Amino acid sequence: MNEEVTLPLEEVRRISIDVLKAGGLSDDHAHAIAEIVYAGQRDECHSHGMYRLLGCVRSVKEGKVNPKAVPDVVDHAPAVVRVDARFGFSPLAFECGKPLLVEKARRTGLAAMAINNCYHFSALWPEVEAISTDGLVALAMTPSHSWVAPAGGSKPVFGTNPIAFAWPRPDGPPFVFDFATSAIARGEIELHRRAGKPIPTGWAVDRAGNPTNDPAAALAGAMLTFGGHKGSALSAMIELMAGPLIGDMMSAESMAFDEGVGAAPCHGELILAFDPKVFLGADAAQHVARAERMFEAIVGQGARLPSQRRYEARKRSKLDGVRIPRALYDDLQALLPHR
Amino acid sequence: MNEEVTLPLEEVRRISIDVLKAGGLSDDHAHAIAEIVYAGQRDECHSHGMYRLLGCVRSVKEGKVNPKAVPDVVDHAPAVVRVDARFGFSPLAFECGKPLLVEKARRTGLAAMAINNCYHFSALWPEVEAISTDGLVALAMTPSHSWVAPAGGSKPVFGTNPIAFAWPRPDGPPFVFDFATSAIARGEIELHRRAGKPIPTGWAVDRAGNPTNDPAAALAGAMLTFGGHKGSALSAMIELMAGPLIGDMMSAESMAFDEGVGAAPCHGELILAFDPKVFLGADAAQHVARAERMFEAIVGQGARLPSQRRYEARKRSKLDGVRIPRALYDDLQALLPHR
Repeated sequence: MNEEVTLPLEEVRRISIDVLKAGGLSDDHAHAIAEIVYAGQRDECHSHGMYRLLGCVRSVKEGKVNPKAVPDVVDHAPAVVRVDARFGFSPLAFECGKPLLVEKARRTGLAAMAINNCYHFSALWPEVEAISTDGLVALAMTPSHSWVAPAGGSKPVFGTNPIAFAWPRPDGPPFVFDFATSAIARGEIELHRRAGKPIPTGWAVDRAGNPTNDPAAALAGAMLTFGGHKGSALSAMIELMAGPLIGDMMSAESMAFDEGVGAAPCHGELILAFDPKVFLGADAAQHVARAERMFEAIVGQGARLPSQRRYEARKRSKLDGVRIPRALYDDLQALLPHR
Repeated sequence: MNEEVTLPLEEVRRISIDVLKAGGLSDDHAHAIAEIVYAGQRDECHSHGMYRLLGCVRSVKEGKVNPKAVPDVVDHAPAVVRVDARFGFSPLAFECGKPLLVEKARRTGLAAMAINNCYHFSALWPEVEAISTDGLVALAMTPSHSWVAPAGGSKPVFGTNPIAFAWPRPDGPPFVFDFATSAIARGEIELHRRAGKPIPTGWAVDRAGNPTNDPAAALAGAMLTFGGHKGSALSAMIELMAGPLIGDMMSAESMAFDEGVGAAPCHGELILAFDPKVFLGADAAQHVARAERMFEAIVGQGARLPSQRRYEARKRSKLDGVRIPRALYDDLQALLPHR
């Protein structure tokens, strides 16, 4: 049952749009989400690729997400854009707010976009990458649901709280990272549970707060942050910056709001954009070129840059298309009308 | 030889100012640095307390630092303050630029202060704490000297690259963290070498890139970041944001600039300030109060908040004064005139 279907990239976009529209999403949402699915599948981030369409359509059926929400973009302050996603998915809210974010950063040097009341859908890297294509530096963060214990504790407080960063590079795709501040993605623990495999020490504790290698005990207990007390501090920062600072829910509040449905987290997101041209004026290009020395020093010693694997996959996908499991392909076809 | 001297807090400030003035620092620099030394000693961060005065005066003698530099504060863009420290120590540059940073954040929502050409002196927490006393959220970062290898590599590229954050709390000192993105402070490895003790695995690799427990081999090789590839990504971000983005040196460049003297790193620093009142308007107090729930969830389960130890030390020092080694006290007295 490891049969796969090869699809040209354009087909990924088309199927995604069709599945989303058939699932009740408005045209605007279908297109915005399809772009994210396209990017994820293209870069071989399978968990953020076409697989996501199933959960997306299911979330709409569960009735929490508004599939036709029209985001409200507000020019809130000289350096702040606020976008009320009105309980729709996040990609359209991001798309609608981005032009004003970029405009503000170009005027003031740096600017923030606060997206509120959105159902988190995307990874953060497509967003920071999109901002970097305008020549800006971007930093994004969002809480999730409270599954992760603080350092020294054993009860969940934090979400998996991802943070992502993009730095534009003169001759190619940007330097991008996007990582969860939890030791591991929650999905990884679930995969281990289904496979009946133990999890490595350091991922989680059980209900009593003891280190555990049992994925079921981990899911009932608490995940841990990466990097001990430092990762824990960073996770707390993300709760605060993409929570109370922008008037939105922290991970524990978002989990309570979910009422056990298990939908995508509803919450806020904070995205910062910095314009090197404002910071550096006529010297911007020279300093951005100088940054290349650091990348050379990393790659030159055989180490990888954070997004290198994705960019290699991107090249392959553009040439050869993408491969998805036949079962996923069939599931998606079943969601299309007039089959 | 473990004899100690107890000093009232005011005496810490007075001695620091006198030592710094006798060491050739201008009045303004002496006062700004003394405040930082005072704060470090008060909070029992001994490595950033009075001990630092020795290195500070020595750095001036070495001739790299300008002890009388007058920082140049430039209103660079609607949300950007630039401060040219003119190759003086950092605390005065920070002090001079801070009022404009705060003013800008209050007007635009968020603002950046780029300090250039400064000799790093202070930890970052006194700076982010100072900004939080104005009710703002603060994030600060700076590169250092290239001692740290990227994840998957074995040759130094990054500095110990600290990052610090402060969140104002309604009823007490702010939530503050300040950590190096290296696995450990370089000084810790040096202490192990002097004590002839092995270092834990995970701190460093030797020249050949192999994990090492030998502190001398570690110092000749490369330190590692905290948190594997995630900590490494974060360290790269700090190089870029507090380096090329603000037109200043990355850690490798700063190390080359030092020419083997071993002075405090000369480089830039990026400080961001966010005003919750602009982000949230009339609802600011309500959301800041809501953030307290997260702190309660952490402390309530017996885990510590990042700055808790410092704040406990601060209370003690205010009541009982501070204790420093007699040898340090004598060294400092020897630096005073007319002894």
